[in-house]
Amino acid sequence: MKWSEGYIYTLKDSPADAEIPSHKLLVRAGMIRKLGQGVHTYGPLMLRSIRKFEKIVREELEKSGCVELLMPLVHPKELWDETGRWDKMGKALLKFKNRLNQDWCLGATHEEVITDFIRKDIKSYRDLPKNLFQVATKYRDEIRPRFGLMRGREFIMKDAYSFDADPESALDSYKKMHTAYCRIFERLGANFRVVKADSGSIGGDTSEEFHILADSGEDHLLVSEDGSFAANVEICPAIDFEDASSSQEELKSLEEFDTPGLKTIADLANSLKISEKDLVKTLFYSASNEPEKELKPVAILLRGSDELNPIKLKNLLGLNDEPLMLNDQEVKNVSGAFPGSCGPVGLNIPIYMDTGVASMKNYVVGANKDNKHIRNVNHDRDYKVEKIVDLRLAKEGDKSPDGKGQLKSYRGIEVGHIFYLGQVYSKAMGATYLDKNGKSQTIEMGCYGIGISRSVQAVIEQNHDKDGMIWPAAIAPYAVHICILDPKDEKVSGVAYSLYNDLNAQGIDCLMDDRDERPGVKFKDADLLGMPLRVTVGGRGVENGEVEIVERKTGEKRSIAISDIKKTIIEWWGQQTL
Amino acid sequence: MKWSEGYIYTLKDSPADAEIPSHKLLVRAGMIRKLGQGVHTYGPLMLRSIRKFEKIVREELEKSGCVELLMPLVHPKELWDETGRWDKMGKALLKFKNRLNQDWCLGATHEEVITDFIRKDIKSYRDLPKNLFQVATKYRDEIRPRFGLMRGREFIMKDAYSFDADPESALDSYKKMHTAYCRIFERLGANFRVVKADSGSIGGDTSEEFHILADSGEDHLLVSEDGSFAANVEICPAIDFEDASSSQEELKSLEEFDTPGLKTIADLANSLKISEKDLVKTLFYSASNEPEKELKPVAILLRGSDELNPIKLKNLLGLNDEPLMLNDQEVKNVSGAFPGSCGPVGLNIPIYMDTGVASMKNYVVGANKDNKHIRNVNHDRDYKVEKIVDLRLAKEGDKSPDGKGQLKSYRGIEVGHIFYLGQVYSKAMGATYLDKNGKSQTIEMGCYGIGISRSVQAVIEQNHDKDGMIWPAAIAPYAVHICILDPKDEKVSGVAYSLYNDLNAQGIDCLMDDRDERPGVKFKDADLLGMPLRVTVGGRGVENGEVEIVERKTGEKRSIAISDIKKTIIEWWGQQTL
Repeated sequence: MKWSEGYIYTLKDSPADAEIPSHKLLVRAGMIRKLGQGVHTYGPLMLRSIRKFEKIVREELEKSGCVELLMPLVHPKELWDETGRWDKMGKALLKFKNRLNQDWCLGATHEEVITDFIRKDIKSYRDLPKNLFQVATKYRDEIRPRFGLMRGREFIMKDAYSFDADPESALDSYKKMHTAYCRIFERLGANFRVVKADSGSIGGDTSEEFHILADSGEDHLLVSEDGSFAANVEICPAIDFEDASSSQEELKSLEEFDTPGLKTIADLANSLKISEKDLVKTLFYSASNEPEKELKPVAILLRGSDELNPIKLKNLLGLNDEPLMLNDQEVKNVSGAFPGSCGPVGLNIPIYMDTGVASMKNYVVGANKDNKHIRNVNHDRDYKVEKIVDLRLAKEGDKSPDGKGQLKSYRGIEVGHIFYLGQVYSKAMGATYLDKNGKSQTIEMGCYGIGISRSVQAVIEQNHDKDGMIWPAAIAPYAVHICILDPKDEKVSGVAYSLYNDLNAQGIDCLMDDRDERPGVKFKDADLLGMPLRVTVGGRGVENGEVEIVERKTGEKRSIAISDIKKTIIEWWGQQTL
Repeated sequence: MKWSEGYIYTLKDSPADAEIPSHKLLVRAGMIRKLGQGVHTYGPLMLRSIRKFEKIVREELEKSGCVELLMPLVHPKELWDETGRWDKMGKALLKFKNRLNQDWCLGATHEEVITDFIRKDIKSYRDLPKNLFQVATKYRDEIRPRFGLMRGREFIMKDAYSFDADPESALDSYKKMHTAYCRIFERLGANFRVVKADSGSIGGDTSEEFHILADSGEDHLLVSEDGSFAANVEICPAIDFEDASSSQEELKSLEEFDTPGLKTIADLANSLKISEKDLVKTLFYSASNEPEKELKPVAILLRGSDELNPIKLKNLLGLNDEPLMLNDQEVKNVSGAFPGSCGPVGLNIPIYMDTGVASMKNYVVGANKDNKHIRNVNHDRDYKVEKIVDLRLAKEGDKSPDGKGQLKSYRGIEVGHIFYLGQVYSKAMGATYLDKNGKSQTIEMGCYGIGISRSVQAVIEQNHDKDGMIWPAAIAPYAVHICILDPKDEKVSGVAYSLYNDLNAQGIDCLMDDRDERPGVKFKDADLLGMPLRVTVGGRGVENGEVEIVERKTGEKRSIAISDIKKTIIEWWGQQTL
């Protein structure tokens, strides 16, 4: 496309509300523009990148036997009532009434719709397996949209759903999708990790996330040294790399002492000259699904240096949502002291101990009297524990759960998620088939998402520099950016347009900057827009029979003879794409 | 695609709520399925047809210099307030509140969004003209969705918007789009008409509709014999082909007579032995925008055989909406008689006469006394007319407004609409540019829609028979439908798969019915699905070195030597596509 015939407007300044580089750059390049909170228009260049990524996704899914359809964005309440998610989904599901006062919602996900679709068709084991997908706009009523497309309300997603006769076959389908996803993100040209993940509100029990690594990623990932184990911190087992330093000590006698004004673990560690990891902290939570009606307090013991993983606690207590912490007065009522002076000794509520505390001996805890602590505390001897269980957030340096060295920490942007669902939806909605013996069986399901618009931004979050974006060839809006420095010089434009036409004819799409602008302006825009290869055609070069090419990623500049330029670029292109 | 690897489920029976053939057939073919009123899932075959049509639309628009982007489906209220359409659009605009209690709507059209988009970029006359388009899902809260995709709530539409410096250039853009639309519908392979149209709520003053002709079409079109004039009945000028038979009579004397029980024009015509077109009927409407506050009654005179065109009356009276008829008691109050006995003589309200009445002499009207009429009535002599004006619906047999013969009547399905908007939106939203003299000017706009999903169904409404759909090659889900009659016979499947692979490699996409089903079942499904060419590969034929091809449209059957089949089909395909 020629710049003059397209629609490209770049900005000098980033918008005030853009916090991360990819958001700033996409707005400055005119590729996205906010219409309202969490809602963006995709400009022509952005749409090209999105379509290129969608094409990769389609090709790999179709290779894996998936069939594409398209489901509606608006869904009737009745369908969501069948699974109970009309109520369970909370406020992220945008509900509205139409002019006839009927209840509808904007589809945030399509398990109900697809299950309704297939239950009308699939009758027999001979109809299975099936895997259906769509690439479609979704809406999730995020309370605080941010980071451009990263956490938007309206977004483009690919969602696929597999249907199988039994769990073995369902896990085969799951593995096929795992393989397809790896190919998709490899072709995208992104540095990504696959991690074990929490299943969240979708349900089911096997799930993995695909993350594009980037410093600003909202997710915290833990990966073993050789990469063989990887998990989202939400679900990562936490294993201390070594036992507590006190683990071999003889038990000493309890000793209460004054700790006036020492409210935090940090205060206590400083004052007692004990490392935080050798202290024990006591937290109080409600094990109730309706804490306003019934409190059901429990105490949690963690090493002073550790953080509670609320998902692990939620799962331990069998709650619907992450549990609430007791407030100061509730803690006082339960323990006899305000937070900062609480401990397990003498409590008459269930006490859950994180595994990290298990090997500790003779430790310090609050005395359940304000401004007092006790030292030389030991579980079993001084108080009873309900259960010793993994409750903390894993962190860098922990032992890898597969036994292979220590965990390393990364930040990631979740761009894909695959779930083995089992019968959660098919059972609720009566999606069954007749097996070989004519007996009715419930269909096994899986679901598989890729955030299309988010992935495209995530690629830029991973690939940019101070001057602009650095598109991988697979989804660059254009492969080649040709700058004519002297558009009115016939020789120059002859060379430029001949190259432009030849490359386009080869399927190597070119953006031609034919504006009457200074070279500096053109180069600045070329750097900002970040197409993989820039070709500069100028008067002096053409006099010498040469044009210049610059690879955006490496900055490597080369002068190429005009007679070789087409061949050179075709060869370069061949190395870029999978 | 092989049937066994796809997702195709056909039904024997049509759904109870399907009224027109295309709706029944698309549902029976599994191509669409209702999720809720006016909301459908597009099955895999339907999605292929939709995508093929989208591709045609994209190609032709890009050839015309349009650039694609993608705008959001959800829009903030603030933007629609700028043009006043938040209130004016009525209930078809689905409004909702998000979780933060902010007002949003589902985009039924995108004039506000695109004008907001471009006003931030376009600064100078050098930035013009531009034409931007999208292919996107829209939502219109239809009160009574019906006919499948024809009048759906959620639908896929292509909408384009042009931006120009002045009216001349804007009309050039309009004409370019007219040309592109003609090419699009020609390539689609549909029998269509372009007609002059009413601009409706979009505003502006030049507009044409593109209609696919079909008996069940909701729109009534009038076309001159040579096709040079065509209009939607809503806007078509109505011109009597000849003057009234009484036009040359001498004026006779008024004569009141009894007409007990003769309430309708038909009653009167029968009783008096006068043709309906030689009677005059008097209708009463309110010329008020708020008839509940102020009635402003007016009388309308039409020939007994004619129907009022409410849009013409609305425009004549300068109203916002189509005017309301007075109720019986209001008519009595105004005229002195109940409807059936009313006439213009003695009325003291404005009287508007349709041009069809102008040449009539000595006609019969109600006497404004119940059960009495008067004959030999003549305007000017017996009562005064405010204005003689075209107020009736045009009809077959009328004089063509371009003077070329008589109008013919067609039914059409509106699939495209182009509008010259002028400055309606750009003025309201402050979309301006600086002209060559540095003076701020308001941008001229046009907007251009194609109902993508509706077009695909309309094609089937026009092209089907009792056995099923008849797809034009351009948007058939697959070009060729291969039925293997003996899938277990190696020779047969060797021939079939060799053809299947060769044709697919040539870009002629094939559906292979590889099911273990009787030939009758396969043929019935092939007829229902309606791919343009069916190829039957059976044991006996292969023995004889032959396969059979059947063209779906003509039913023409031919036996082709296996050695020639590939060449024959490639040639056939070359004739199908534009």
